[in-house]
Amino acid sequence: MTTEGQHAARRVELIEVSPRDGIQNEKVVLSTDDKLELLRRIHAAGLRRTEATSFVSPKRVPQMADAEAVMAGARAEPGHAALIGLVLNQAGFDRARAARCDEINVVVVASETFSRKNQGAGIADMVAAASAILAQSREAGIPASVTIAAAFGCPFEGEVPAAKVLGLVESLLPARPDEIAFADTIGCGVPTQVRELLAGAKALDAGMRLRCHFHNTRSTALANVLAAVEAGVHALDSSIGGFGGCPFAPAATGNVATEDVVYLLERMGIDTGVDLQMLIDTAGWLGDRLGHPPMSGLARAGRFPAAA
Amino acid sequence: MTTEGQHAARRVELIEVSPRDGIQNEKVVLSTDDKLELLRRIHAAGLRRTEATSFVSPKRVPQMADAEAVMAGARAEPGHAALIGLVLNQAGFDRARAARCDEINVVVVASETFSRKNQGAGIADMVAAASAILAQSREAGIPASVTIAAAFGCPFEGEVPAAKVLGLVESLLPARPDEIAFADTIGCGVPTQVRELLAGAKALDAGMRLRCHFHNTRSTALANVLAAVEAGVHALDSSIGGFGGCPFAPAATGNVATEDVVYLLERMGIDTGVDLQMLIDTAGWLGDRLGHPPMSGLARAGRFPAAA
Repeated sequence: MTTEGQHAARRVELIEVSPRDGIQNEKVVLSTDDKLELLRRIHAAGLRRTEATSFVSPKRVPQMADAEAVMAGARAEPGHAALIGLVLNQAGFDRARAARCDEINVVVVASETFSRKNQGAGIADMVAAASAILAQSREAGIPASVTIAAAFGCPFEGEVPAAKVLGLVESLLPARPDEIAFADTIGCGVPTQVRELLAGAKALDAGMRLRCHFHNTRSTALANVLAAVEAGVHALDSSIGGFGGCPFAPAATGNVATEDVVYLLERMGIDTGVDLQMLIDTAGWLGDRLGHPPMSGLARAGRFPAAA
Repeated sequence: MTTEGQHAARRVELIEVSPRDGIQNEKVVLSTDDKLELLRRIHAAGLRRTEATSFVSPKRVPQMADAEAVMAGARAEPGHAALIGLVLNQAGFDRARAARCDEINVVVVASETFSRKNQGAGIADMVAAASAILAQSREAGIPASVTIAAAFGCPFEGEVPAAKVLGLVESLLPARPDEIAFADTIGCGVPTQVRELLAGAKALDAGMRLRCHFHNTRSTALANVLAAVEAGVHALDSSIGGFGGCPFAPAATGNVATEDVVYLLERMGIDTGVDLQMLIDTAGWLGDRLGHPPMSGLARAGRFPAAA
């Protein structure tokens, strides 16, 4: 049956962010071997792009201190997903290029206060820095996406108007990113916002690949996934087990869980190419290593219908 | 902005089920006074219909043993929401009528196995019993709704085809219920199912009031709420704090949390008439009494934007 609002999307790409956003704020620092095992499991489950690590200060983010070793180990695997390195500045990009990331992802923040606290620079400076990195990445032949953080709301400034976020998109387009992602960093977004941002971005550049990054902090993540998929989003970030909180969102649950997204989409007839049971098993495995249980519905309640 | 799929609903009615579905499986048996305090808080928050209790065997459901006392106490309050009594059989209806419920809700189950395990009778017998109760309720001038449980899936039989659920709707229509509710008893439903059931029910009786009852077991509850509201549902069940699991869905989270529903809808510009902060406060109060914290995003993470 097709009803209004139910679009013809038959496949959505999932980008697995557990190796970076999922674990970066966890107290337990995973060994490089455990990170490589996680990346192996991600590939085995059918996920074909993953945010493998970030090239940031090891003093600020100790969990990511072994970024180069993770990249080297993951690249040595006979099969692996496209390995995305997150970068925040020129130094990070230089490291990511040297480590031979398959893709890079650069971040700008949609609120001035959050940008200064998180990145140490205001929006205009970060757009200039991101644009310079995007140009170098293009020159080096490395696909590059840009994530607009706090695109649905800011922990310091409150509401972030869609017009402001779309203004940022416009200012980034001359640098020709391969993909633009809207991130609900603190998990406050609702479907009307998702629709407004995606429609607005399409109006600015009909050919741009669009991606969304949701957190389930206020239980709205799968409603936002539904709205995004039906508004024609190309890709979604998600994190096995639902791990990954924002340090500015206290007591928050984490990223939307990959297994919950796969359950929703597959049961709606939308292909993800991912093995649900392997995700659930990996959520449990990762929870054991991190010392607390996964936060996904599927890891708690199991599949439906029960596996044969 | 209006995009495809975003309908013009500007108000949705919420039916608060914490006093019945929310607490019936909790280990801690609340005092009658605590139940009356919960009902006072429900009314004060702006909720105007509530499943106040159920008239079932106190041996089977000890939490509901004081149904008559709860009804008497709640009716004595200067202001109270419409008090709905859940009934499963003739004896329950007789008690609900004697206790002067403002409404009754009768249940049938969409799967034969679940019906026999939960109600002790098969579907056909339950439809006949429900129809007899609906007729008596109409005669007595008591509004009556019917809930179709396991309408999105069964813990024993697995998938429940929409055609089967809509067949049940058809068999109940001659008894002229005032409202029909589709319940995702074990929290396995997805938005395509919501749309198919609501569109199918409208096709059978365009004037029928339709209601949905979701559980967040597999994190899909707010996606289902979104689909239901945009498909024109009249009312939604929800439970403060997200309390209330199904005994057949082990380790499940509970009913969709009222505060999460209100957050989603109000932020999308859909009026609920409910005070979000009072819900969050009541979720904490109820959690203290039940001995475990609420399971809602809003109770964990707080409002956004932060209250002034």
